[in-house]
Amino acid sequence: MTDSLTVADVQAMLDASPYIRGTGMKVAHLDANALEIAVELAMRPEFERRAGTGQWHGGPIAALIDTAGDYALALHAGGPVPTINFRTDYLRPAVDTSLTATARVRRAGRTVGVVDIDVTDDAGRLVAVGRGSYGARTG
Amino acid sequence: MTDSLTVADVQAMLDASPYIRGTGMKVAHLDANALEIAVELAMRPEFERRAGTGQWHGGPIAALIDTAGDYALALHAGGPVPTINFRTDYLRPAVDTSLTATARVRRAGRTVGVVDIDVTDDAGRLVAVGRGSYGARTG
Amino acid sequence: MTDSLTVADVQAMLDASPYIRGTGMKVAHLDANALEIAVELAMRPEFERRAGTGQWHGGPIAALIDTAGDYALALHAGGPVPTINFRTDYLRPAVDTSLTATARVRRAGRTVGVVDIDVTDDAGRLVAVGRGSYGARTG
Amino acid sequence: MTDSLTVADVQAMLDASPYIRGTGMKVAHLDANALEIAVELAMRPEFERRAGTGQWHGGPIAALIDTAGDYALALHAGGPVPTINFRTDYLRPAVDTSLTATARVRRAGRTVGVVDIDVTDDAGRLVAVGRGSYGARTG
Repeated sequence: MTDSLTVADVQAMLDASPYIRGTGMKVAHLDANALEIAVELAMRPEFERRAGTGQWHGGPIAALIDTAGDYALALHAGGPVPTINFRTDYLRPAVDTSLTATARVRRAGRTVGVVDIDVTDDAGRLVAVGRGSYGARTG
Repeated sequence: MTDSLTVADVQAMLDASPYIRGTGMKVAHLDANALEIAVELAMRPEFERRAGTGQWHGGPIAALIDTAGDYALALHAGGPVPTINFRTDYLRPAVDTSLTATARVRRAGRTVGVVDIDVTDDAGRLVAVGRGSYGARTG
Repeated sequence: MTDSLTVADVQAMLDASPYIRGTGMKVAHLDANALEIAVELAMRPEFERRAGTGQWHGGPIAALIDTAGDYALALHAGGPVPTINFRTDYLRPAVDTSLTATARVRRAGRTVGVVDIDVTDDAGRLVAVGRGSYGARTG
Repeated sequence: MTDSLTVADVQAMLDASPYIRGTGMKVAHLDANALEIAVELAMRPEFERRAGTGQWHGGPIAALIDTAGDYALALHAGGPVPTINFRTDYLRPAVDTSLTATARVRRAGRTVGVVDIDVTDDAGRLVAVGRGSYGARTG
């Protein structure tokens, strides 16, 4: 659909958003044919749920899910699309670890796209799952 | 259930979380009997979707929804409870405005609580809605 | 938007669907200006979760939620619209009771509509809540 | 966790529910170690969205999703567990086809289980996806 966005292309799109750039999200991998993307986010003290615990607050995890889902569809649409809605399920606490969100497009329809997002820790354990609906046009 | 938490009590709980304190969320109002709470978040440049537009990124809106929902149940449980899952629907762009999330407990069960969260802008327009399930015990 | 659909108009639309007609859903009330509708469903033995208990299975409750949400937007669109997705939260068992789903449009946008649906029993207790996104055009 | 429920065991559980038995859902396959189950549902005239079209109404699809998710966790818990909430996304119309819901447990926690459910038609196309949270104890 789009002319094969590269990791650098998508990273530049992420960095064009003050919010996303501020979090430090990095594109780790993408597959433009499979419409899959992996986005990493390193732990920072300001992401802690409680001071000194090293445990992630759910807020940046939800933001990571929404962003990864959006940019999986961007591989199809050529750029970020509006989020219609998304669901986040927290499965286990994430402590002292980076997080990787792997987003996979389940359906890229004419008006709506649906994406599944798995968030894993450095040990590969699933810490959260997301599912989002996005508008199919860039905007 | 709990001995009437005050705005100051809940604000202290918010501020005990590095992530929440870092965003600047403020408790604007609460009703401990009705299990309702309003949490405000002022716009900052680092919350922008795109530089210079004044438009909110969805990430901090989702975090505001999750937090307001959690602390509505905290009025019942005496403190924050784990989020099981939540859904965020974005209804219209929020531009050059503070946001207020008003959370209302729909059911405070023995093991699961369900909360609805409406997010409005300074003009009182609804910009997003959330619905979350939370564990009923503090943790 | 539409020329004030009546209860009889919407009931005729429900009855045009073999699935909905087969369940026996009845329009109890509507407000075309407020985009609100109430749909009732009487208990039947074939809706039981377990034989002889009088407890509703979640399946017909979910179908009632989806249908009520859809026809709240039909008051705006002039007819039923495609469901994009919906969420159902079960709050308490419903036993030996009819159910009423009251659906209220939260946002009727150009391409997506969002509706909240509350399901109550004969005693007025909330037994389930739904939230759905629907395409904004009939189809 | 449980002593390897068989297809016949789970089918007997389904048939003990008047609602599920009435729909005709059949266990097609299960993997008690992987906590995966496939449940089939044949088209019937009373499942039609509109008479004579052969298109499935969303109601029975949602019920199929909820049931398959529940019984994937039953492989872990030894029996059906209460649904906390679930989300259904419709991806494309299902016409003149049986449906198979394949449910896979993503997390079987101490108090909450999370399950993903894919619904495919006879041609193997994905027509809907579900995600549910369930209480971890039978009830």
